[in-house]
Amino acid sequence: MSKTAEILAIGTELLLGNIANTDAQAISQGLSELGINVFYHTVVGDNGGRIKQAIEIAKTRADILITTGGLGPTYDDISKETVAACFGKTLVSHAPTVERINAYFEKNNFKSPTENNYRQAMLPEGCTVLQNDWGSAPGCAFEADGMHVLMLPGPPRECVSMFRHCAMPYLRTLSDAVLVSRNIRIFGMGESAVEDKLFDLMTKYQNPTVAPYAKEGEVMLRVTAKAGSEAEAAAMVDPVVEEIRGILGDVVYGVDIESLEEALFALLREKGLTFAAAESCTGGMLSSRLTDLAGVSEVFLGSVVAYANAAKTRLLGVPEALIAKHGAVSEPVAKAMAEGVRERFGADIAVAITGVAGPAASEEKPVGTVFIAVASAEGTTVYHQREGAGRYRVRISSTNRALDFARRHILGLEAAR
Amino acid sequence: MSKTAEILAIGTELLLGNIANTDAQAISQGLSELGINVFYHTVVGDNGGRIKQAIEIAKTRADILITTGGLGPTYDDISKETVAACFGKTLVSHAPTVERINAYFEKNNFKSPTENNYRQAMLPEGCTVLQNDWGSAPGCAFEADGMHVLMLPGPPRECVSMFRHCAMPYLRTLSDAVLVSRNIRIFGMGESAVEDKLFDLMTKYQNPTVAPYAKEGEVMLRVTAKAGSEAEAAAMVDPVVEEIRGILGDVVYGVDIESLEEALFALLREKGLTFAAAESCTGGMLSSRLTDLAGVSEVFLGSVVAYANAAKTRLLGVPEALIAKHGAVSEPVAKAMAEGVRERFGADIAVAITGVAGPAASEEKPVGTVFIAVASAEGTTVYHQREGAGRYRVRISSTNRALDFARRHILGLEAAR
Repeated sequence: MSKTAEILAIGTELLLGNIANTDAQAISQGLSELGINVFYHTVVGDNGGRIKQAIEIAKTRADILITTGGLGPTYDDISKETVAACFGKTLVSHAPTVERINAYFEKNNFKSPTENNYRQAMLPEGCTVLQNDWGSAPGCAFEADGMHVLMLPGPPRECVSMFRHCAMPYLRTLSDAVLVSRNIRIFGMGESAVEDKLFDLMTKYQNPTVAPYAKEGEVMLRVTAKAGSEAEAAAMVDPVVEEIRGILGDVVYGVDIESLEEALFALLREKGLTFAAAESCTGGMLSSRLTDLAGVSEVFLGSVVAYANAAKTRLLGVPEALIAKHGAVSEPVAKAMAEGVRERFGADIAVAITGVAGPAASEEKPVGTVFIAVASAEGTTVYHQREGAGRYRVRISSTNRALDFARRHILGLEAAR
Repeated sequence: MSKTAEILAIGTELLLGNIANTDAQAISQGLSELGINVFYHTVVGDNGGRIKQAIEIAKTRADILITTGGLGPTYDDISKETVAACFGKTLVSHAPTVERINAYFEKNNFKSPTENNYRQAMLPEGCTVLQNDWGSAPGCAFEADGMHVLMLPGPPRECVSMFRHCAMPYLRTLSDAVLVSRNIRIFGMGESAVEDKLFDLMTKYQNPTVAPYAKEGEVMLRVTAKAGSEAEAAAMVDPVVEEIRGILGDVVYGVDIESLEEALFALLREKGLTFAAAESCTGGMLSSRLTDLAGVSEVFLGSVVAYANAAKTRLLGVPEALIAKHGAVSEPVAKAMAEGVRERFGADIAVAITGVAGPAASEEKPVGTVFIAVASAEGTTVYHQREGAGRYRVRISSTNRALDFARRHILGLEAAR
């Protein structure tokens, strides 16, 4: 019999609409991977009485309660006191956490921690402490009143990291079925086209299941099998992944990989190639995403964000006359930018992006007109992208496209779609 | 006495984590503008029994119930039947909606509507119909059991549009209070230090309220007043904002502004200055954040992401010998990078960032060692930052610091803390 969880998010900022409850989304995804049912999400403010009421309700309808938020050092962070009281627990000071707080202040040359900072070290007696390697407030897990209670911090990065690295392993011990998932990453085919192609396959299988997730400009498919052992579940998943690869072809850019930049990084490293970029409308977004990856200095030399036209000429050697004749957003300028940045950095492969991100159109070119060029010893190719939506969307999709275009260039493939 | 609302989102896709509950966020924002308190968000799947249970709970604690989702034509869309039954209402066919459905099918050359399509025209007897100009399923509003019940469709575009255009005018008639908020943005002082300084003030006021929010490396304070008119509420908020500015001093970088990059952009524009950047460990993050802002090309010329040491020399003119002597992560190299990029772009102000983001330490400097330089006609100043946490944190905080350091340089202020 599978367990049932309720997610209780605590934070007035959610009720004021300052942020969306993305923690609950990420936790729900993880619980679904674990085969744990989620029947309710509840959001409540930083108010003792209402938190208590919400917990009493959760006790009547869930086996596992996961709270998020309210673990910080300030006076309105009352989750621990309130939750502990609801389950008849007292808070005790957790010595290793006190040490971590002291070490953190020392290392950062802050003045001494205040009374408030030490409140973060007060945790329910007998709990399992979930160490926070992504922020300062630790989480915790305990069992009481026939329920498993897990408390996670509110800031999404801390919450999701702690959930994935600490809470999921804890929860996995509560179930005897093992789930194995593979994430198939797709770029260059929309969600409905993917579903059309896979309709028969997706309805045929019950175990493993195949579920689609749309991400900004990409599609992800998660294939999940439930079995008695990890090996057994993996043996059920892998043939389905291969079947899907066969149907979708080379729009699948990776399996169990996080992003287009990770796929490009892996390929550059594998081939021993160096990389540079010239960015105009994306303004550093591609470089920033690449340099989010630890170790990328092995292949990435750098980039020029040539936002002003003069910068394209001075830093990349794009002839002024070329810009005057074709406009900065044009195929010849994209090509010259890619070749210029490749030469200046002495890179094996270089990519260039020039386009109109909006909101103002320029050079009589509509918002969403983007040229992306890839240059290597084999020559330079240019892709002309037309993307309808607003500034943010144009920047993201140009970045995605450039990352994918570079990857495909190395593999000798045409640009997708 | 102000009214209390509960938002009940209905949809299994939310419980599976396929999407975040952004509808609840948008509705909460609107309700906050109307001065209506939101004490709970609840999410429940497309399950009659559990929807019913959630409504019974909401009846005990809210004056207004807003549901989202489950209004579509398919078999799992059961919100209307279930909600109507909970309030003792029967569903009746709404003739204008039937006509709209027929017209829609005719216009789009679809085959005739099916029985399912006409289900969308079934609405609680005596309700106010909220016409859907953004999709096909109408919403509705009615009063029963001493409660106001509003039902909105689930797809975010339809939900938010209908809420703003139809539900808010309906709700406005129920309340007589107006809320005015100001957001105070702070950089260079931690959340607990801010609260320490403002403790008396924060506990003294009930209206306006002062609430802190921590963001990555920043703090925001929201001051909110409730009154009979907008002018009256504003007159209550503004003196408190000034009082807080007086207490915190120049770590307040703006009021009702979104980010450090926006503050820098506004200042550059105001002073008529151009800007360029040289980024090493931040790898384009600062440039990407600046170019997120529409119109920034007015002041931002571009940047060089000099990730490899050779790029620092070739593209920014940093002498090889300087790097060999002091290391790439050093005060002299940061200074040379800022001056080099300022000269190459012909910018008024330039900032440079060089540091160890990790996970690997380099040059025997610990992860988190960062040097940030600002160069202008007045000269160059360098800030030495030591940030404890991981790669992501180092990159974000270096970017924040550089944006703030540049702003302060223009204003003739020292770096914060």
